[in-house]
Amino acid sequence: MPYDLWYWDGIPGRGEFVRLALEAGRIPYRERARQEGDEALAADMQSGRRNPPFAPPYLVAHGMTIAQVANILEFLGRRHGLAPRSLPGRLWVNQLQLTIADMVTEAHDTHHPIAAGRYYEEQKEAAAQRAADFRDARMPKFLGYFERALERNGKWLAGGRRWSYADLSLFHLVDGLLFAFPARMTTLAHRHPAVMALHDRVANLPELQDYFSSGRRLPFGDGIFRHYPELDGT
Amino acid sequence: MPYDLWYWDGIPGRGEFVRLALEAGRIPYRERARQEGDEALAADMQSGRRNPPFAPPYLVAHGMTIAQVANILEFLGRRHGLAPRSLPGRLWVNQLQLTIADMVTEAHDTHHPIAAGRYYEEQKEAAAQRAADFRDARMPKFLGYFERALERNGKWLAGGRRWSYADLSLFHLVDGLLFAFPARMTTLAHRHPAVMALHDRVANLPELQDYFSSGRRLPFGDGIFRHYPELDGT
Repeated sequence: MPYDLWYWDGIPGRGEFVRLALEAGRIPYRERARQEGDEALAADMQSGRRNPPFAPPYLVAHGMTIAQVANILEFLGRRHGLAPRSLPGRLWVNQLQLTIADMVTEAHDTHHPIAAGRYYEEQKEAAAQRAADFRDARMPKFLGYFERALERNGKWLAGGRRWSYADLSLFHLVDGLLFAFPARMTTLAHRHPAVMALHDRVANLPELQDYFSSGRRLPFGDGIFRHYPELDGT
Repeated sequence: MPYDLWYWDGIPGRGEFVRLALEAGRIPYRERARQEGDEALAADMQSGRRNPPFAPPYLVAHGMTIAQVANILEFLGRRHGLAPRSLPGRLWVNQLQLTIADMVTEAHDTHHPIAAGRYYEEQKEAAAQRAADFRDARMPKFLGYFERALERNGKWLAGGRRWSYADLSLFHLVDGLLFAFPARMTTLAHRHPAVMALHDRVANLPELQDYFSSGRRLPFGDGIFRHYPELDGT
């Protein structure tokens, strides 16, 4: 029976990190809210599960409801061989995934530094300040970290000859940064050649070409990664 | 050989979530930066490990360097029986821990909504706005979620007769909120009796009494949880 992935329709969002792992791992799944609408997701969230999710995405698999991106990926990684089998390898990939998640949250907060539930237009002034700090301090710090991780491990973040789910997630994070901060990324790309090479390597994975050409990979828009020219800068 | 815990001296910080698990689990550990100073931590961070941490806390155990709080706790939980053994139980506790981590980050950002590396005094205006949203929208949402999780699972978050590391972390999160937002928590405590009872239950755990009376549990101050009266309100 295929897994059920529940995430809001219309944006890649945090669901995309799970989607990439399912697609690259060739794991059958149904995208429930895309088939049945966001109302079905809202209703499912209220359905009184014993172990409820705080927020989408969540995966329903083997009778379990599994929420939080890094938690879902840990499950998929182990069950479907998308991460090293060894304990040190699994912990390292989970650690990387959690660091990627931290940067994703910070990228989101550049346009919503005050309140996630309000419009960008209501928090533009604070957004300009937070985005400047993100560009100047946080982007080099995070990207420099992933650069070092790749320098030490080789082609893939966890070493070895095959990608792990953390490589797919780093690809998507960099993709989002290229969309949201194209000017800043033009500057930073030169200093982070290993990160950019990883991005291109995942973009060209044979396992993902069907997905990329399918229309299932939604374009960036009004989600986590947003392109407001006034928040970008070299 | 005891584990090495590396975290900045002087504040409970994110290190405290790990510390509580080590202490309640009676797992021997050395607090390296408290013994050797923050310079030793800074030097250790630069020591060129193949799998480097992005930031403290990290644990050095059995030759592995394990960073990110939820990752460390997943390791300790499994190795030392601080979480259910079953796969659904482990995933649920990890999911809860990641949701706790999300709220911890949001609590931090109430006083640092613009730049983690700058002073609160430089971002007071934005902090007042973000704190208002945190108090009004986010605190009820997160605490309501943990309340439902306890209503459905009983005495402890993962059900059963013994605490898991997520219970310890929720205790510390609530403790931090009581310190930082005492007025708001006075209002919210009545609506979240199960969360408050969990907090008291962990505070009274026999396993933790030595720790609480030892002086090793540092008081809150200028860390994640800060009490600025102007950011609080009923």
